[in-house]
Amino acid sequence: MSEPVRQTIDVEVRYAETDQMGVVHHSVYLVWFEQARTRLCQTSGFHYAKIEKMGFNLVVTRAECRFVSGATYGDVVAVDSWLERLQSRGLRFGYGVRRGDEALASGTTEHIWVDRATGRPCRMPEVLREPFTRLAGLESL
Amino acid sequence: MSEPVRQTIDVEVRYAETDQMGVVHHSVYLVWFEQARTRLCQTSGFHYAKIEKMGFNLVVTRAECRFVSGATYGDVVAVDSWLERLQSRGLRFGYGVRRGDEALASGTTEHIWVDRATGRPCRMPEVLREPFTRLAGLESL
Amino acid sequence: MSEPVRQTIDVEVRYAETDQMGVVHHSVYLVWFEQARTRLCQTSGFHYAKIEKMGFNLVVTRAECRFVSGATYGDVVAVDSWLERLQSRGLRFGYGVRRGDEALASGTTEHIWVDRATGRPCRMPEVLREPFTRLAGLESL
Amino acid sequence: MSEPVRQTIDVEVRYAETDQMGVVHHSVYLVWFEQARTRLCQTSGFHYAKIEKMGFNLVVTRAECRFVSGATYGDVVAVDSWLERLQSRGLRFGYGVRRGDEALASGTTEHIWVDRATGRPCRMPEVLREPFTRLAGLESL
Repeated sequence: MSEPVRQTIDVEVRYAETDQMGVVHHSVYLVWFEQARTRLCQTSGFHYAKIEKMGFNLVVTRAECRFVSGATYGDVVAVDSWLERLQSRGLRFGYGVRRGDEALASGTTEHIWVDRATGRPCRMPEVLREPFTRLAGLESL
Repeated sequence: MSEPVRQTIDVEVRYAETDQMGVVHHSVYLVWFEQARTRLCQTSGFHYAKIEKMGFNLVVTRAECRFVSGATYGDVVAVDSWLERLQSRGLRFGYGVRRGDEALASGTTEHIWVDRATGRPCRMPEVLREPFTRLAGLESL
Repeated sequence: MSEPVRQTIDVEVRYAETDQMGVVHHSVYLVWFEQARTRLCQTSGFHYAKIEKMGFNLVVTRAECRFVSGATYGDVVAVDSWLERLQSRGLRFGYGVRRGDEALASGTTEHIWVDRATGRPCRMPEVLREPFTRLAGLESL
Repeated sequence: MSEPVRQTIDVEVRYAETDQMGVVHHSVYLVWFEQARTRLCQTSGFHYAKIEKMGFNLVVTRAECRFVSGATYGDVVAVDSWLERLQSRGLRFGYGVRRGDEALASGTTEHIWVDRATGRPCRMPEVLREPFTRLAGLESL
């Protein structure tokens, strides 16, 4: 077992993302996390848009975020993401948001696989087993 | 021909809707307009959620908004809406946003009917013809 | 010590809040939480807008949400909030989102007081001590 | 007089930006427009964050958008912007959104300069006169 694959996206703070406190509204970090894990999934060879078309949803069951310092308009922040935990029916992503070397926030999201046809939880699509195992830095699942 | 039906919703400004200028971000007004026309459609007896389930989308083809004064966190604003123009294949809603008597913004959105099955423009669903004609304050269409 | 004061707001799901999964995007729950705690603070006699004008920010340091079932367009959901934990320098709110009796989500947010003039953490404004202690259902702090 | 400077940004559609119609919600285009004009201003040598720090706001007084075809999750769209009209007290930006060669939307936003100290309309900051005249493709203003 090795380290999970780590992907980083650069996000330019949008004016609309700030609030009257002068920093990015805390709810926006969940949107950035999502954009980061889109990129991470994409590196596995499967864009999440494609996964949905295959008939599966990766439904968020829990999200958690710790906020250290606020991102501001004008910043370009780096959002790191990795597949922290992988099981046959669910998974957890980890995230970090940085401005240069300064940590701004960190968090996790937990998900389960849902079969779009039935709307019910299901096992990970077979075709993703190998690429996601690799993302997670695991030998096998 | 009489006046179109006018509906008003009260919207409490959300902190997340403000930006670092200390007022509500201009893009939010389009969201408020949408909430207002949801209520307006609802008064016709057809919630827009129901219209979609019937197989139709009311796709936005144009939106316009003029901003006079900014809404701020702590405000409860009134959003008026009315069916300004009704045609067999499209329609236009009008909107006004007020804080008490003070006009904050006004705007319009234009829409066409789309058949969800084909993804193509279509005529207004027959079942909406009478209630929407009434909404528009018209004798007949 | 008694139970904390519980406030409930009704929130009409906005079309813009849905995503292509057909349910409300998970980040939106944090916005609803915020609207709920605005109402809760308001019942203490201090709208959060007023607290900011007094020179204080209640900065979010952590947010957590568990998602059970998705809210959909057409729903009016109830968002409960309460002051779960009160300390001199920080506090934690609890939240529940329901559609009738069905639990959709629950969560918490943690906050610290920040002096707007210095941008540094500070103690709870003296004037809020009594009303917030009451909100929390405590005898004294 | 020559053509105005045209800047293009690439925007990766975020899942949170879609709605239950399966396309990007129309209000999001205003946010993209804003990100595009941030980049355009930046090419003049003045990031809008800096302009605000200089004591000025570029307040939106009108926004208009025409929607041709919907952007979808998985798309990377190009957002073009240019300074369409420049006057001493206000200006208008033009925008186009494309997916490759396919036009998705176009729009304009109109703005006035506001002095942050007084909250009142004012003339364009002197220091921006030359760079913005150049952006607009004008000889002089």
